Amino acid sequence: MIWWRTSSADTDVNPDLASERAFPSFCVETLTNLLDGSVDKTRLRRYVVSTILKDPVFSREGHYFKTRQERYEGAVRNILHLKQKIKELGWLEDGPEGEFIYRAMGGEVALNIHGVFVKSISALGTDEQIAKWLPLANNCNILGTYAQTELGHGTYLRGLETTATFDISNQQFIINTPRITATKWWPGDLGKTCTHAMVLAQLIIKQKNYGMHLFIVQVRSLKDHSPMPGITVGDIGPKMSFEHIDNGFLMMRNIRVPKENMLSRFSEVLPDGTYVKRGSDKINYFTMVAVRVSMLRQEVLEALMKACTISIRYAAVRRQSELKPGDREPKILEYQTQQQKLLPLLATCYAIHYTVCHVNKVYDEVCGAIQAGNFDSLPELHALVSGMKAYATETCSNGIEVCRKACGGHGYSLFSGLPSLYTKVTASCTYEGENTVLHLQAARFLIKCYAAAQSGQSLPQSVAYLSSPISGVCQATSHTDFLNPEVYIKAYQHRAHRLIASAAFKMRNLVQFGMEQYDAWNSTSVELVKASIAHSHYIIVKLFADVTGSLSSSPEIKKLLKSLCDLHALHGIFTSSGDFLQDGHLSGHQLEMVTEAYLSLLTLIRRDAVLLVDAFDYADQQLLSALGSYDGNVYHNLLECAQKNPDNKKVNAVFENYLKPHLQSNISKL
Amino acid sequence: MIWWRTSSADTDVNPDLASERAFPSFCVETLTNLLDGSVDKTRLRRYVVSTILKDPVFSREGHYFKTRQERYEGAVRNILHLKQKIKELGWLEDGPEGEFIYRAMGGEVALNIHGVFVKSISALGTDEQIAKWLPLANNCNILGTYAQTELGHGTYLRGLETTATFDISNQQFIINTPRITATKWWPGDLGKTCTHAMVLAQLIIKQKNYGMHLFIVQVRSLKDHSPMPGITVGDIGPKMSFEHIDNGFLMMRNIRVPKENMLSRFSEVLPDGTYVKRGSDKINYFTMVAVRVSMLRQEVLEALMKACTISIRYAAVRRQSELKPGDREPKILEYQTQQQKLLPLLATCYAIHYTVCHVNKVYDEVCGAIQAGNFDSLPELHALVSGMKAYATETCSNGIEVCRKACGGHGYSLFSGLPSLYTKVTASCTYEGENTVLHLQAARFLIKCYAAAQSGQSLPQSVAYLSSPISGVCQATSHTDFLNPEVYIKAYQHRAHRLIASAAFKMRNLVQFGMEQYDAWNSTSVELVKASIAHSHYIIVKLFADVTGSLSSSPEIKKLLKSLCDLHALHGIFTSSGDFLQDGHLSGHQLEMVTEAYLSLLTLIRRDAVLLVDAFDYADQQLLSALGSYDGNVYHNLLECAQKNPDNKKVNAVFENYLKPHLQSNISKL
Repeated sequence: MIWWRTSSADTDVNPDLASERAFPSFCVETLTNLLDGSVDKTRLRRYVVSTILKDPVFSREGHYFKTRQERYEGAVRNILHLKQKIKELGWLEDGPEGEFIYRAMGGEVALNIHGVFVKSISALGTDEQIAKWLPLANNCNILGTYAQTELGHGTYLRGLETTATFDISNQQFIINTPRITATKWWPGDLGKTCTHAMVLAQLIIKQKNYGMHLFIVQVRSLKDHSPMPGITVGDIGPKMSFEHIDNGFLMMRNIRVPKENMLSRFSEVLPDGTYVKRGSDKINYFTMVAVRVSMLRQEVLEALMKACTISIRYAAVRRQSELKPGDREPKILEYQTQQQKLLPLLATCYAIHYTVCHVNKVYDEVCGAIQAGNFDSLPELHALVSGMKAYATETCSNGIEVCRKACGGHGYSLFSGLPSLYTKVTASCTYEGENTVLHLQAARFLIKCYAAAQSGQSLPQSVAYLSSPISGVCQATSHTDFLNPEVYIKAYQHRAHRLIASAAFKMRNLVQFGMEQYDAWNSTSVELVKASIAHSHYIIVKLFADVTGSLSSSPEIKKLLKSLCDLHALHGIFTSSGDFLQDGHLSGHQLEMVTEAYLSLLTLIRRDAVLLVDAFDYADQQLLSALGSYDGNVYHNLLECAQKNPDNKKVNAVFENYLKPHLQSNISKL
Repeated sequence: MIWWRTSSADTDVNPDLASERAFPSFCVETLTNLLDGSVDKTRLRRYVVSTILKDPVFSREGHYFKTRQERYEGAVRNILHLKQKIKELGWLEDGPEGEFIYRAMGGEVALNIHGVFVKSISALGTDEQIAKWLPLANNCNILGTYAQTELGHGTYLRGLETTATFDISNQQFIINTPRITATKWWPGDLGKTCTHAMVLAQLIIKQKNYGMHLFIVQVRSLKDHSPMPGITVGDIGPKMSFEHIDNGFLMMRNIRVPKENMLSRFSEVLPDGTYVKRGSDKINYFTMVAVRVSMLRQEVLEALMKACTISIRYAAVRRQSELKPGDREPKILEYQTQQQKLLPLLATCYAIHYTVCHVNKVYDEVCGAIQAGNFDSLPELHALVSGMKAYATETCSNGIEVCRKACGGHGYSLFSGLPSLYTKVTASCTYEGENTVLHLQAARFLIKCYAAAQSGQSLPQSVAYLSSPISGVCQATSHTDFLNPEVYIKAYQHRAHRLIASAAFKMRNLVQFGMEQYDAWNSTSVELVKASIAHSHYIIVKLFADVTGSLSSSPEIKKLLKSLCDLHALHGIFTSSGDFLQDGHLSGHQLEMVTEAYLSLLTLIRRDAVLLVDAFDYADQQLLSALGSYDGNVYHNLLECAQKNPDNKKVNAVFENYLKPHLQSNISKL
């Protein structure tokens, strides 16, 4: 018995959920091990998660009743306690436990950007800077943030307006916020916590602009935490979620910092004002890729997996309306429309899981190459990660809303756990690169590769298909043909290839007819985004099919994963059918076959749906959901949550202040 | 100068917004009048809105910093003050002012369900019941709620479990919550406010169940507001939005109410326990339709119009990245990808506006017929409204999220106004009929009509096309042909017709092959939902085209509305292209023409985009958005909002409690 399943005996489980688990067609534990990577990894994950969940300091009791201030205080308390605990237990943040710690904390920790502050010093600081600042930062003797985004400037770094002007006479930089749009805006931990900021600013020496550089600026006193002279700093106010994070703003008026405060591993200002650039700072660009890779699992996929767990368990317990006249109200999971909402998303969890594994593998390889000084694969990795970040964040956040709405009214209650999953993860469509911008970056790579292929150059592996001639029409003659991965992989590849080729063709035409290149790009950008999405989806489907094809697991699990892969692929064709029909790769008749195969898969996967989310292996305390607990006692949970509402225990001032005179003016008439 | 535009002179307007208004291609005021219905209606609306916004009691200063309890108290204060004010001003809630009052209040009022309580008494109570309860309720001497939904039961009324058992000996009903799933859950005003509940319960007389009836039950004391004996009542806790509403739960243990408390206009229990049914209670069912009709404008379209106003004004002010190399950062509205996000939604506002006008007209006609005892058109109206409610709530809430994300990081701040528009309106996909359920109800009507047409019966007007043979292939030969409304109306009609026919065909086949009817229905339900969506969209496109075709306004405005209609229609074909391609109504080549026409319309509408949202004529105090104000001074607004954050003025306890020991243990090293 896994400790975190709330019920100590199966008899406590709602019979509607117990019946879903009574005759498993596969071993759930084996699938969990497969998802984790190995039996040992499962064991380690459970050990880390349980250690954290058992600690009363980390308790999330009453979570949904907390104010912003309480959430923030809790997040600060959590991170300081966590750092202490990690030290005591001998865990390593970068070690095997590290990957599970954040997941176990459910992200409810502060000082995340302090980590970025630390990393930027290690990556971009000189040895002296590292020696000076790192011990202080690692011991939390100073707390940092990373101040990049400005009120008027986001994605486009060259547009930032903050200036750092070198003053030769004092060997200092004078840092300024020249106008309101240059106010630093959004940095986490800046609003109420940090003492130092890593400020990205235009370096100016003798009136000449040398572009963006990083400067360490103290923003608050270590003695009383008050803003330093010339500093205006504060919290930017409430957001759609992230109540626990103090995103802040920062204005600087003639702040002087010593020359040594500019991070100088790759560029330096000499005492006489000479600017010296050395080495490659591509590594900085690589860091951005690293952040996107790590967010895919920890922030994005994780959230969809939780939403699927909650909504599928609930759909097996909730009974509603009438299917067969006269029968008992059926579980809502029996309805085809409910299956169509939830089961493709369940399949998507598995699809993105394998994509994330692949992206991590590629990332590690490129990482190794870069350490050996070879940056050749960086553009391909960058394009892959850009497309996947955009694809996965969009798919997962939209999917969570589908899960939430599929829980009906109860999905709207915070107690379901679903609203906060959504309001949090939807931010990931914007941060770390806005999705449309990222798709266009990926598209730029694809168009470049397409042109290279046209001129006979060889292409990196992920886009190698652009070198082959575009494939012909689909050969499927029955709906079962569409359960052949070769058939649907080809369809996805064809779609991506056609959309890329057609965007390239349109742009070339526009330019030939006299349009400027940048204008042609903009006029094609809707189609370029479509092309990037199609390419990302092709990669996902292909990876999923390849993995399930080569898996050495039990035959039942292989079969099941194969069906999930089919479902994921056919659902995508069903919902984006125009892309596959447009040039006749699929005929209308074949699309009917796809529909038939797709709808049959819903019935097939429905049987194992609950076990397939059980395999994600979330503890109830991780889900924080009245609807999603392992025991399925949803109504009991909801009522218990409502009764814990502190509001229900307070005297209602509204009665005394507003209602009483009305209610008591006509009592005799009753 | 309209009073609610914040700037007293055009010089205060951000030049980037001023330039959008400098050379209008049409008269904004004329368009506003057209949207309102007449010059007089515009005048009246502005008078009502300004009267309300000027009242300091209704001030929404500091709105985004308020706690749930403060929002709730404010909503109670607002409604009581509003009732007083309406009386003093001689306004009528059901009169010409009524329609604008709720809009002006931005929904920030309590006692909404008290209104439903009142209406159910007027519609379903006897004359004696009306005489007794209505004056008390209208004077707020009692405060009611409408308690239908239960913890375990939503849409399916027959599944409700609360019982009202007739006790002949005392001439009383004994009301009970027999088990936890029967707990009343969600009723507004129940959590902390109301004194009485209109309880929907199974009527049981001598062990026989007579189905659902309504009973007036006192739940709280009028003297001290404490729960009555046998009553357990409270607030159900925090939700995704609606912080100002106290949705509640209610359990009843042997609550006795006199026989007279059952609403008895259409059914009565005689003293000896005889059950008498009289007249038709179809009117009750009609009330549900009425609620859906009224929410379409006030809660749903309104929200999308606000979101478009905010995001389009912001897109004309925000500058980002680089379009033409070396040029100033362009307005983000210049990017095709940004246009594609916002402009089709702008067109959708106009499309749904005309749909709502039409639905209201049909509703009034049916209303008149019903008053004359003719219920014939009720099924058509019910189907129309079910489909439109589902279509509009889904489209508007998804659209608001698109607007929000299109504002980048600032769209995630509550100060943008967008997160709360979304989290509120998304609830409308679930309440007043869950959308999938509603689409299936509309589909049931469509399938019935299709069968009737097959057997030669004549059909109601909105589905008359099902009587004609399904139309042939599209005849368009160039992209300009797709700017002909006849062409795209035919395409939409063809799509709806085909999907309905194909669902009917599939069901008939399944039944012929031995499947039970209910099972065939369920196995086709994904396709049935698609058919209902296609039918609703056809109606919307046709109405919009008809209106713009027959409009007697200025030529500029006619032309502009025609372009918006084209954009709405072609965007729909572009995004759901598979439906149009599947049976060859459109060829792949024609879809390329659609794409070309669609993308050109984006450029065309972009020119007037800001004026087209100006025409919605929202006061800044209605938008409550730092990004959407009329003057476009977004950065100033954001900073001002952040600086008003009360958190920024408080001493940070986190420093004293958690940070200080860390920060002060190594000061000497700095």
